[in-house]
Amino acid sequence: MSVSLLDHMGDDLAIVNAARVSYGKTHDHVDESDRGLIGYLARYKHGTPFEMVVFKFRVHVPISVAREWQRHRIGSFNEISTRYVEMLPEFYIPEPEAVRVQTGKPGHYTMEPATRALAEQCKGQMLAAYERSYETYKALLIAGVAKELARNVLPLGMYTEFIWSVNLRALFNFLSLRTADNALYEIRVEAKAVEELISSVVPIAHTAWNTCGRTAL
Amino acid sequence: MSVSLLDHMGDDLAIVNAARVSYGKTHDHVDESDRGLIGYLARYKHGTPFEMVVFKFRVHVPISVAREWQRHRIGSFNEISTRYVEMLPEFYIPEPEAVRVQTGKPGHYTMEPATRALAEQCKGQMLAAYERSYETYKALLIAGVAKELARNVLPLGMYTEFIWSVNLRALFNFLSLRTADNALYEIRVEAKAVEELISSVVPIAHTAWNTCGRTAL
Amino acid sequence: MSVSLLDHMGDDLAIVNAARVSYGKTHDHVDESDRGLIGYLARYKHGTPFEMVVFKFRVHVPISVAREWQRHRIGSFNEISTRYVEMLPEFYIPEPEAVRVQTGKPGHYTMEPATRALAEQCKGQMLAAYERSYETYKALLIAGVAKELARNVLPLGMYTEFIWSVNLRALFNFLSLRTADNALYEIRVEAKAVEELISSVVPIAHTAWNTCGRTAL
Amino acid sequence: MSVSLLDHMGDDLAIVNAARVSYGKTHDHVDESDRGLIGYLARYKHGTPFEMVVFKFRVHVPISVAREWQRHRIGSFNEISTRYVEMLPEFYIPEPEAVRVQTGKPGHYTMEPATRALAEQCKGQMLAAYERSYETYKALLIAGVAKELARNVLPLGMYTEFIWSVNLRALFNFLSLRTADNALYEIRVEAKAVEELISSVVPIAHTAWNTCGRTAL
Repeated sequence: MSVSLLDHMGDDLAIVNAARVSYGKTHDHVDESDRGLIGYLARYKHGTPFEMVVFKFRVHVPISVAREWQRHRIGSFNEISTRYVEMLPEFYIPEPEAVRVQTGKPGHYTMEPATRALAEQCKGQMLAAYERSYETYKALLIAGVAKELARNVLPLGMYTEFIWSVNLRALFNFLSLRTADNALYEIRVEAKAVEELISSVVPIAHTAWNTCGRTAL
Repeated sequence: MSVSLLDHMGDDLAIVNAARVSYGKTHDHVDESDRGLIGYLARYKHGTPFEMVVFKFRVHVPISVAREWQRHRIGSFNEISTRYVEMLPEFYIPEPEAVRVQTGKPGHYTMEPATRALAEQCKGQMLAAYERSYETYKALLIAGVAKELARNVLPLGMYTEFIWSVNLRALFNFLSLRTADNALYEIRVEAKAVEELISSVVPIAHTAWNTCGRTAL
Repeated sequence: MSVSLLDHMGDDLAIVNAARVSYGKTHDHVDESDRGLIGYLARYKHGTPFEMVVFKFRVHVPISVAREWQRHRIGSFNEISTRYVEMLPEFYIPEPEAVRVQTGKPGHYTMEPATRALAEQCKGQMLAAYERSYETYKALLIAGVAKELARNVLPLGMYTEFIWSVNLRALFNFLSLRTADNALYEIRVEAKAVEELISSVVPIAHTAWNTCGRTAL
Repeated sequence: MSVSLLDHMGDDLAIVNAARVSYGKTHDHVDESDRGLIGYLARYKHGTPFEMVVFKFRVHVPISVAREWQRHRIGSFNEISTRYVEMLPEFYIPEPEAVRVQTGKPGHYTMEPATRALAEQCKGQMLAAYERSYETYKALLIAGVAKELARNVLPLGMYTEFIWSVNLRALFNFLSLRTADNALYEIRVEAKAVEELISSVVPIAHTAWNTCGRTAL
């Protein structure tokens, strides 16, 4: 899995100047009063100025993770098409320490690390299942079956790639949900990578959001 | 695959009365002038009155189809969770006449029906691949692996289920794209079923949209 | 000012059944476990099931209030058109107890009730200004000037009317912001009227939201 | 009235590379095949790649125009606050050639230029109305009445200012509606200024959209 920052529009100053338009003023650079203003905006959940910063990422994750990611409707996605492209045999195999055992009831699950033996078994079985699925996929393509139909045998663990454009307010909501302890492990890892990437672009806003409880603004 | 209409808010009259608020008037029932008004709204793409009608559907389709469906961001989805639920072994097997061969280049594909022999071969190979994937899924669950991790071996052809709430304007956009000839066959079939379901709820609006070229409003 | 509930789709049961689709189950009526489920959804901010309930309101407020209202982008509006309709001379005059004096700095304003004398003076001055503006509006129309141009002299205190369709999740966000102590008095009054109207349609969801801090879900 | 481009993310190349992710490819610079691809995307209304370009504008227009502008929900607005700021006496006075007479029925209006004499009369009456309204506003403020209440006497012709962030797809929809012949004259002028500003940032996409009928993508 990987995520990279391709482009962005605006930074802490863009937030400040969008907020200050409410008061009919703008600044050329960020000063101490702006730091206070951003803190104020985050504390009182004045979210719209944070929409003035926009990021664009390239995301490479399994389809199972992409499905959760793309449920976030405020933002734009362009994804590799399994209708048009012959997919490459790239599949998600968890690191041994990422294999977990699930206990408890719906809504109250607990995840525990698997034993080393189980982790190895899991890896082996996933790999074997992936390979057999991909063999069938290729066989269907060779027989002439349309990609859009043959793809049905591909597993949710297959890698996909998409471009994601999202503003900082929607991104804070994403980070709030997807870096939380009860988020899916795989999306949590990538959401933390996203957080790391944006923290240097909007350090003041990121700190303010972090200080104010990491909730949606 | 199946889709059912669970509930709706409003009908042709709701569109008319939303439009007439622009002129400060409302009607109690639909009359001939309203038919003309709805035609006018569709022709000149005054889309907002159509947002006043809302539908709620239950949709049962393969994950490969659900992924296209859920790219429509104006609307609401609640889907069965592969993190929380042990999935049942229900998989998409195309009818023989739905198996197609793909020729041409990206952007200019042509789909041709497969021979009967190829259709049979395709069905057999998909079924075998589905069964092996599901066996691995079950084996991983029995070994204690978390559902959210084990699901990665499940195929895109596995059935999922979701509730979808969407307003008529966004639905017209969906129908415009997903009933088109170049849409994926499987989503086209279900989009046509959706169209059939709503046509009796908003017959005048449906006719007007149909007459005006079936484009987004 | 006034707001009325014109229609709605769904109720507490719709929320429950949308949430239960995650677990592959539905209920016919709301029982005690459903009450617990709705509380759980509100507490953990699982907001999407609340989107399955949709309301439609008729709202009659001054343009100054409508402008704040229509900044809420998740939802649909159809408003009386000042381009097409000759507006009636209906203007907002605050009740004496609603006239307030503003002290403090931006971001930290305090509102105090005006004296009775000031309230009367305010009412008189607003009324006179409204009447003169409306006279000019009428004079321009009589002279043949287009409504869309003549409207520029109309005051922000003039009444407008719109139809508003919004789902319960977006509505909770609206209520969270617009019933807060620091919200504009006029929108707060109407937001509370909205809250009263929906509380009987979704009593369990409303109680759960109220108990969980009245924040956006 | 005025509009200025403050910032943007991406250009024609961003569109191309977002589209090419569907085929698993990216380019470093725009070549002839990319020009063809953008034309193809516009022709077949593949709108999502155009969302990858984002613009930020500062807009200075009368409130009557801002109200139409802000009905566009895909995008972000931060506006000067009439709750927090004492508004300056800046009002919209149409150029003589912009004063028009309205004839016909709702839905079928025709606008004709006013005579020179009517244009002068209109200007004089609007100016007088504006000035009296503003005098009342100031008198109320001096008496201590809260800005958020006193603003109700301000006219729709008063200037406001806002920051607007919007992606290119939503912007094409805005331009399609607001540069049309039946759009309000004042917003048409500014929409054309917006179009001029973006045409040099995304010349190929702009040409393609123009060639394909200037409709929403």
